[in-house]
Amino acid sequence: MNVDGKHYRTIWVEDDKVMLIDQRDLPHRFVIEEVSSVKDMAIAIRDMHVRGAGLIGAAAGYGMYLAARRGENLEDAAALLKMARPTAVNLEWAVGRQLKALEGAQDPIARLLEEAEAIADEDAEFCRRIGEHGLKIIKNASGEGTVNILTHCNAGWLAFVDHGSATSPIYAAHDAGIDIHVWVDETRPRNQGARLTAWELGQHGVPHTVIADNVGGHLMQHGMVDLCIVGTDRTTRSGDVANKIGTYLKALAAKDNNVPFYVALPSSTFDWGIQDGVAGIPIEKRGADEVKYIQGLHEGEIKRVLLTPSSSDAANFAFDVTPARLVTALITERGVCEATESGILELFPEKKED
Amino acid sequence: MNVDGKHYRTIWVEDDKVMLIDQRDLPHRFVIEEVSSVKDMAIAIRDMHVRGAGLIGAAAGYGMYLAARRGENLEDAAALLKMARPTAVNLEWAVGRQLKALEGAQDPIARLLEEAEAIADEDAEFCRRIGEHGLKIIKNASGEGTVNILTHCNAGWLAFVDHGSATSPIYAAHDAGIDIHVWVDETRPRNQGARLTAWELGQHGVPHTVIADNVGGHLMQHGMVDLCIVGTDRTTRSGDVANKIGTYLKALAAKDNNVPFYVALPSSTFDWGIQDGVAGIPIEKRGADEVKYIQGLHEGEIKRVLLTPSSSDAANFAFDVTPARLVTALITERGVCEATESGILELFPEKKED
Repeated sequence: MNVDGKHYRTIWVEDDKVMLIDQRDLPHRFVIEEVSSVKDMAIAIRDMHVRGAGLIGAAAGYGMYLAARRGENLEDAAALLKMARPTAVNLEWAVGRQLKALEGAQDPIARLLEEAEAIADEDAEFCRRIGEHGLKIIKNASGEGTVNILTHCNAGWLAFVDHGSATSPIYAAHDAGIDIHVWVDETRPRNQGARLTAWELGQHGVPHTVIADNVGGHLMQHGMVDLCIVGTDRTTRSGDVANKIGTYLKALAAKDNNVPFYVALPSSTFDWGIQDGVAGIPIEKRGADEVKYIQGLHEGEIKRVLLTPSSSDAANFAFDVTPARLVTALITERGVCEATESGILELFPEKKED
Repeated sequence: MNVDGKHYRTIWVEDDKVMLIDQRDLPHRFVIEEVSSVKDMAIAIRDMHVRGAGLIGAAAGYGMYLAARRGENLEDAAALLKMARPTAVNLEWAVGRQLKALEGAQDPIARLLEEAEAIADEDAEFCRRIGEHGLKIIKNASGEGTVNILTHCNAGWLAFVDHGSATSPIYAAHDAGIDIHVWVDETRPRNQGARLTAWELGQHGVPHTVIADNVGGHLMQHGMVDLCIVGTDRTTRSGDVANKIGTYLKALAAKDNNVPFYVALPSSTFDWGIQDGVAGIPIEKRGADEVKYIQGLHEGEIKRVLLTPSSSDAANFAFDVTPARLVTALITERGVCEATESGILELFPEKKED
């Protein structure tokens, strides 16, 4: 999508080097990093210069290409990349896809570049299709006046190669000239909404307002939200979704106020082996300091400040599970379906167990 | 309650001066301010050195005493105090009570001091009784192991003269030796939970853990919350409660997971003229900068940092309304009642309209 009027992807190749948007200092600084070795790519993934399922996969694909270009051992490169963030499913998947692409390749460097580009293109294309399908929903919601959409966290193009998942219908609607406005949950503790989603919407010119995570229920009670669209990190066979912590609370408020609640996802987030998300999806617990401290801009410099008594403990659960009963529909690259096993299997019949 | 092992109220008289805990730099600095004029008391109220319904009323009462002691015009003093925070009901009420106390008083200074102390004592005593009634609820919830209580914002002793409303049953249970642990919602955007509730619980020795506002739903899904207790700024005749923004979301999660959701209040928060809280209670909208910026400690100094893109707008609704259907019971100074008009009128029969 656009940054300051110019189209960007989150990652691309330029003169044999991989360029990526270093997201760590956003929204305060827009930094493009040049990565020329697999080791530096592993660091960029590990230290979250790049993050988000789709983007991590693409970064790993390009990392394998960099290793080949330097003549490094590709098995070692694969191991290094997979270790960078052990829980990211896309990392393992992309590295595996690259190792497979090598089989019988005459020019490994060219082959790995080709496949890395294919991984990135596919990610962008799946997200684009999510936008196409979601656009119809937003069109249907647009009568007189603005369509108000609430989103949580960053399921934006910064989490993928382009378009994003939850944001893709939003960009599609905005680009189609529909009058939309986005309520951006700040998404404590890591503030991906206030930092990343607000930044990308602003750069692309989409009207938006940042709100504390506490506010969505009040807005829905007063008819100020027409629909919610969020992403998901893992989706069960029955349509339960594990997304950034706090998503469940917004889904409850949407249900209580008859506001449609959509979840947008490329099908790679399905975990076909799990039925019950609350019982079956393990929830990552992160460090207390992410709650106790926060980073922001002070007199032109990025500083980290303490928010709580230094002696108070803090707990930091990264995700929660929204049961399928609270989800109006799933928006996938293949179309829109009910958040039920039968609804999902209509779009993905190859996953039927019989 | 205790600070560093010593008992404090939030406001008291010492050598003809009024002393108060200046809450602005908490939890990072514990500052006691000496106030010797009604003008300074009005500033302390306006600039939120003191805040919270009960404490504001007590501060206004003491402010009138300070005016009398300096021989100032008491009508002017009353007007000055009432202007300090125009929407605070307790301010008008306390000033009115002092003006009434003056009628026929032989020694106005002594009379105003006596009445100010009565206002403060009554506030503390009502909160103490809330604790007594709420203690029974916590006792009933305590079987084996720790009782986990979730609270939102600061309905603590810092918002009153002592004990607090939501925290009073918590202190009573802790002091009675019941094994309790409190989940403290940080309460964005002003972080009264992370700053004030965490500090007061820590100072009094109550085990607690700060969490982002997004986390409560997940905790309740996994049986990690036994009950919720929150305060209220305004309570309708039918039991709807307007409390800090985000309370409604926690009440929805409590309902969805069969977790009891209690609201603790001195009866002064009842607005007997309103039935429907969502339709009838006006919600204060505050400045965007409270969302965009946050204050914390950096290398020993309190700094304010920018969290969002500087060009992004932010909306800041201060309260939301939790419908009575989501409230298990109200805990008042007169006892515990159902959050329904008939339940409330059993405790407050003098409010029956007939």
